[in-house]
Amino acid sequence: MYDLLNGLRVVEGAAFIAGPSCGLYFAQMGADVIRFDTIGGGPDYRRWPVTPNGDSLYWEGLNKGKRSIAIDLGRPEGRELAVALATAPGDEGGLFLTNYPERSFLSHAALAARRPDIITVRVMGWADGSPAVDYTVNAAVGVPDMTGPADDPRPVNHVLPAWDLLGGAYAAFAMTSALLRRRTTGEGAEIRVPLSDLAASSLSHLGSVAEVLATGDRPRMGNDLFGAFGRDFVTADARRLIVVAITPRQWSGLLATLDLTAAVAAIEAELGISFAQDEGLRFVHRARLFPLFEAAFAARDSSVLKPAFDAGGVTWGEYQTLHQAVTGDARLFTANPLFQTIRHPSGLTYPASGPAATLAGEPRRPLAPAPRLGEHSDQILAELLGLDSGAIGRLHDQGLVA
Amino acid sequence: MYDLLNGLRVVEGAAFIAGPSCGLYFAQMGADVIRFDTIGGGPDYRRWPVTPNGDSLYWEGLNKGKRSIAIDLGRPEGRELAVALATAPGDEGGLFLTNYPERSFLSHAALAARRPDIITVRVMGWADGSPAVDYTVNAAVGVPDMTGPADDPRPVNHVLPAWDLLGGAYAAFAMTSALLRRRTTGEGAEIRVPLSDLAASSLSHLGSVAEVLATGDRPRMGNDLFGAFGRDFVTADARRLIVVAITPRQWSGLLATLDLTAAVAAIEAELGISFAQDEGLRFVHRARLFPLFEAAFAARDSSVLKPAFDAGGVTWGEYQTLHQAVTGDARLFTANPLFQTIRHPSGLTYPASGPAATLAGEPRRPLAPAPRLGEHSDQILAELLGLDSGAIGRLHDQGLVA
Repeated sequence: MYDLLNGLRVVEGAAFIAGPSCGLYFAQMGADVIRFDTIGGGPDYRRWPVTPNGDSLYWEGLNKGKRSIAIDLGRPEGRELAVALATAPGDEGGLFLTNYPERSFLSHAALAARRPDIITVRVMGWADGSPAVDYTVNAAVGVPDMTGPADDPRPVNHVLPAWDLLGGAYAAFAMTSALLRRRTTGEGAEIRVPLSDLAASSLSHLGSVAEVLATGDRPRMGNDLFGAFGRDFVTADARRLIVVAITPRQWSGLLATLDLTAAVAAIEAELGISFAQDEGLRFVHRARLFPLFEAAFAARDSSVLKPAFDAGGVTWGEYQTLHQAVTGDARLFTANPLFQTIRHPSGLTYPASGPAATLAGEPRRPLAPAPRLGEHSDQILAELLGLDSGAIGRLHDQGLVA
Repeated sequence: MYDLLNGLRVVEGAAFIAGPSCGLYFAQMGADVIRFDTIGGGPDYRRWPVTPNGDSLYWEGLNKGKRSIAIDLGRPEGRELAVALATAPGDEGGLFLTNYPERSFLSHAALAARRPDIITVRVMGWADGSPAVDYTVNAAVGVPDMTGPADDPRPVNHVLPAWDLLGGAYAAFAMTSALLRRRTTGEGAEIRVPLSDLAASSLSHLGSVAEVLATGDRPRMGNDLFGAFGRDFVTADARRLIVVAITPRQWSGLLATLDLTAAVAAIEAELGISFAQDEGLRFVHRARLFPLFEAAFAARDSSVLKPAFDAGGVTWGEYQTLHQAVTGDARLFTANPLFQTIRHPSGLTYPASGPAATLAGEPRRPLAPAPRLGEHSDQILAELLGLDSGAIGRLHDQGLVA
C-alpha cells in the first residue's frame, strides 16, 4: 500500500479479473475503491479456487483493500443507488470502472447525464459487445496454436489469464491518463478496453502481425526461445533449468560457465559465422548447439550450476511448482517484502501481496484484506450520498441494501 | 493515438518489451516519448522477428510514435547527455523510464541530484537486481508446470511474454499515478517494477498463492477451465471451438444451443445436484459432462454452431492461427479500427495498431511509425538541452550523437 493515489475515489461495478484487478491496483496505491455487488454477491463471488466452505480465495485476492456495498440491483431503486454512487459529486470521484455492458443501466450516457465529467472505463470481451473471456480471445489470436511441444499438434490454452491481467493494468493506466486530462481540461471520457483489442494490439506491438504477413505462421517450437538462445535443460541431479542468452554478454557468460566456449567456436569456424554478433544465428543453428548444452547440463549438478550462473551473470531460472515457490523461494515469496500475512474474510490467515511496484525509500503500509460483502454499505451511503441513519435504515427495511 | 497525455514528455532508456511497451502506451496517448539508444542500436535493435534485411519488426512495433536520439553511451560525455535528457527541466518532463540497473550511471540518486522531482520507473528482472527475463520468471512461479496436456508431464513455456506485457502496462499505471501525486505535492518518486514481483503478486491476487497453501499444487488439466465449465471441442467439420460457461445464464444458453438440457438434467437428478447453481460442480463432474458435449459438437458443423452460439448468448471462440486471424478476422484485424496501414522504418507497409483502448466519441488520430534510429537527435538536443546548431554539430563531429 502506497499513497500515490490518496484522495481519489473509484467506484467499481465489475466482476472476474480484468475489472477488479484494475480496482485493486488503485486501492493498493491509496485510492478509496468502492465495489458494489448485488446482494448475495455477483457472478464472481464463488469463483474457484474456493475454501471447503465455499469462500472464494479468488474473490478475496482480487478485492483486497476495497470497500464493499451490497445492493439489490434487480430493482429500479437499487439500480438508482448504483448510478448515484458512480456519479457522486466531488473532484476526488467521478471515476467509474465496470464490465457491465454499455446497453445496461450503467451506460456512460446515463452516467454522464448526471455527471458530465465522469470517466468511465469499461472492460469488455469483444469490442462489438459480444461476450468473450480471456481464453476465447486467446484461441482466436492463435496463441494456443503456437504453444506446447513441437511433437504434439494439440492447441495449448494458457493457464495464466494473461489478457485479463494485461487488461486490468492497461485499464488502470487509461483511467489515470484520463484523470490527468480532466485535471487540465475538465473533460470526462468514455473508455472501452476490450480483451479482443488488447490481444490484437499486443500482437501488433510485438511484431507478430507483421511477421505472419511476411512469412506466415511461426511453427510451434516447444520451449525454444524464438530468435535467440534459450531453452530448458536437465541437470545431473534431474533439476530443470531455463537459460536465456540474447545479448553478447549473456551469451559469452553462458558459454564460459558451461565450458563451451571452445566447442562453440569450432561450430562457428565450421559455419563461418559468429553467434556472439548475431543472436538470430543461435536460433537458426540451435539443432547444432542444443546437444552441447544438453551434455553440459547433464554432467553438472544444479548445486554447482546455480552459483556458477550467478557468478557469470547468466540469465537463468529454475522450474519449480507454485507450491515449491510459495513455500521455499525467499525472493519470490517467503522473504518477499511485498507479502504480509493477514486474516482474510474467509477466516483463513495467509500471506498476500501488496502492490507489485516498490517505491524506494517509502514505507509499505499495512495490507488491507478484502471486505466482507456489504461490510461498508452504511458508511458508503452516508459518505457518498449524504444519507442519514433513518434513510439508510429504510433502505435496509426495503431490502435494497445489505 | 489520443490526446489524454498531450503535453507530457517521457524519456525512455530501455530495451526489450516491458519498458518500451510502457513508453509506447504513453506515446499512443499523446505524450512526447523520447527514446535514447546507443549509436548503432541497443540490445533489442535486431531482435526477432526480422525482415530479410535484418530490420526488426519487433523493434518497429514497440517503438511506434516515439522520437529517437542515438548517443555514444560508451563515453562519459555521451552518458552525460543521457542524464541531461532524463533530467531536462519543465513541468511536462521529469518522467524517466528505464531498465538500466540501479548501479548504472542512470541511478535514481544520480538523476534526483539534478532534478529532485524526477519520477524514475525502473523495470527490472529480479527485485534484488539479478538478471531475469519473462521466461525465467515464469518457470520459477510454476506456470509451465500447470500448462499443457494432462497426459504429458513436460513443462510448457508460454509463447506470449505475459509478464513483460503486464509489466509495461503496470509501469505505465505507476508512472501516471506518481505524476498525479507530483502534481499535488511536488514530490518525485523512484519506482521499481520487477518482473519477479509482478508474477508473485499476480498469483496472490488470483488466489493461487492461497490455493497452493491450502491444497497443494493444482494438477495439470490441459485445456479444461478450472472451477467452472470450459474446454475446446471439435465440430463435425473438424473446426475446434472453445466454450466457457461460468454464470448460470452462460450455462443454460450453452445447454439449450446444444440440445443438452434434458441430458444434463438427468445427470443432475442422478447425482442430486444443480450445475446451474454451482459452477464448481460442472468442473468436479466434468468427466460426466464432457462426453455429451463431445458428441454434440461432433454432430454439428461449425457453420451451424457459430450463429447458434451467438443467438444463444454463448461465450465461445474459434481456434485459428495468427495468420488466419490477421488475414481473415474482421473484428480482430481486417476491419478493426485500431489498425492503420502505414509505412514502417523497415520500408515495409503493413497494418499496425494504435492504442488498445477506445475513447468513445473521440477521433483516432493518425498512427505514427517508429522512428529511424537517431531520426530526431538534432531536434531533441535543441529542444530539451537548448543547444544551438554549432554545439550540435560539434557533438556529431566528436561522434557523440548520430
